[in-house]
Amino acid sequence: MNEFELIARYFKQQATERADVNVGIGDDAAVVTVPRGYNLTMSIDTMVAGVHFPVDTAAADLGHKALAVSLSDMAAMGAEPTWLTLSITMPDPNSGWLAEFSRGLLQLCERYAVQLVGGDTCRGPLSLTTQVQGLVPCEKALLRSGANVGDLIYVSGELGGAGLALQDKLYDDCQLSDSDRNDLMQRLSRPEPRVELGMALRNLATAAIDISDGLLADLGHIAQASELGARIELTQVPKAAVLTDYLALDAAYRLALAAGDDYELCFTVPPAAQSGLQELSQRLALPLTCVGEMVTGHGVKVMQDDATEFVMEKQGYAHF
Amino acid sequence: MNEFELIARYFKQQATERADVNVGIGDDAAVVTVPRGYNLTMSIDTMVAGVHFPVDTAAADLGHKALAVSLSDMAAMGAEPTWLTLSITMPDPNSGWLAEFSRGLLQLCERYAVQLVGGDTCRGPLSLTTQVQGLVPCEKALLRSGANVGDLIYVSGELGGAGLALQDKLYDDCQLSDSDRNDLMQRLSRPEPRVELGMALRNLATAAIDISDGLLADLGHIAQASELGARIELTQVPKAAVLTDYLALDAAYRLALAAGDDYELCFTVPPAAQSGLQELSQRLALPLTCVGEMVTGHGVKVMQDDATEFVMEKQGYAHF
Repeated sequence: MNEFELIARYFKQQATERADVNVGIGDDAAVVTVPRGYNLTMSIDTMVAGVHFPVDTAAADLGHKALAVSLSDMAAMGAEPTWLTLSITMPDPNSGWLAEFSRGLLQLCERYAVQLVGGDTCRGPLSLTTQVQGLVPCEKALLRSGANVGDLIYVSGELGGAGLALQDKLYDDCQLSDSDRNDLMQRLSRPEPRVELGMALRNLATAAIDISDGLLADLGHIAQASELGARIELTQVPKAAVLTDYLALDAAYRLALAAGDDYELCFTVPPAAQSGLQELSQRLALPLTCVGEMVTGHGVKVMQDDATEFVMEKQGYAHF
Repeated sequence: MNEFELIARYFKQQATERADVNVGIGDDAAVVTVPRGYNLTMSIDTMVAGVHFPVDTAAADLGHKALAVSLSDMAAMGAEPTWLTLSITMPDPNSGWLAEFSRGLLQLCERYAVQLVGGDTCRGPLSLTTQVQGLVPCEKALLRSGANVGDLIYVSGELGGAGLALQDKLYDDCQLSDSDRNDLMQRLSRPEPRVELGMALRNLATAAIDISDGLLADLGHIAQASELGARIELTQVPKAAVLTDYLALDAAYRLALAAGDDYELCFTVPPAAQSGLQELSQRLALPLTCVGEMVTGHGVKVMQDDATEFVMEKQGYAHF
């Protein structure tokens, strides 16, 4: 079976058929139509076996996650994801693996009406590169650089769950119950990109980023791009409830602050936006928690209730 | 040095600054503006060390080639390349390598006014993924499926040079002179994407493809997509002149027909377009050679002057 047959077999069967795709898989390039009044957004992400995921990760989970991390980037821009391209490098053209991988990927494509429009496959060490394109009304993209002094810092969902799963997976030292392990592995393997939230924030947030490398590191990017500092109240950080079942409070907060892979959004809003966020939180059935505010200066400080600083050695995931 | 610093150091220094880039490197995603009346084209390509290129390939050559193969896809669609995203997987963050690689890449970016707008870097076996986006006037994209019976089949440039270089590199059995080896390695390492030609063909060609896997294989894709057959006259095939200095005529033709990596364009035109192509060839200082015509039926046949078929065992490069 050659490259072309592989692609045709597993990926041409997708359910999503967007009207704005003029030419999809099967030519030298895809051709699509961008509507008037919209900007195009795009983001590329690579996941390498043994680096970004354990080599024994289920193929369907990988299909989900490879797309989810790119969708999360679209969410962080306030963009609606539309078109996907995918490059798969694998040691051998393994049919069973491709069937499962494409199932996980295309299910998530279908949920967000994202169409796979092109790709590449080649022989080599297992690695997956996804690029998602999206659309955002002109001038409405959520940048990292838009935060102002006094803006409130919000976080969606709960933090640290994926980090605990990874710690358990890597070191096997958390003594998780089977049920908690299943739940947490789900958060690690099948993150939920906050696409609806990102789109709803277009007219509310001044800056946004997705939490892939850890809250402190990612909020640090907002602070740096906005030429400001950020101040977090430790006890306001929405750590996953399960963390304190297995970790001391201190360690639980460290995980919630610095572990990556949760793919929640961190964003800033003017104080007047608070009531709008409450309504949005209810509509999306998603907690949106104020964790601090933007201040003058630089860097991210985490403050404890006694007004002393909570010092972290490691702020997030380092890619090298 | 972490991922972010690496990206900043080597890739933010590009000369190209397009007015249609709203947000480039440094946010969750790039944001660009697609002009009215244009479709967006995109193509993703991965090159793996030891598979697509020898591990000792010069980094600057790799930078050139990683972009050139994607630009060649834009050329084959008749699109003007505009924005690039790049994902680099490498064993270690090697400064010297990145400096050379980015130099080769950004030089080619500058020539075509392509702006690097986003990327990813991660640790792993050396591998490079490029996605180029481009613009083509609505309804003007050159597809593989548009060829008609009686259309003439054209090829740009010369074929087989890159194939001979690869054969020499892999088997060291061609006894090339130093000067020929240098010239041929240049063709293999630094292919010239036929971007101007592709754009000029928008109103002339009925179908187009770039020759990455070999003329027979790639013309086969046009034939299949157009639900036709193709007939090539062997002696018309523009084999690189140097081939017969080292190979028997028969072997030279086989290389010109089936070796990949030349990144020339193969396209079909109605017979009336011939004079337009002659002018175009002169303007671009690029040979454009008629090698045959589209016929009813299916598959690609190569005919010799005595009206017998020239039979090939291998039609092109197989990715697996």
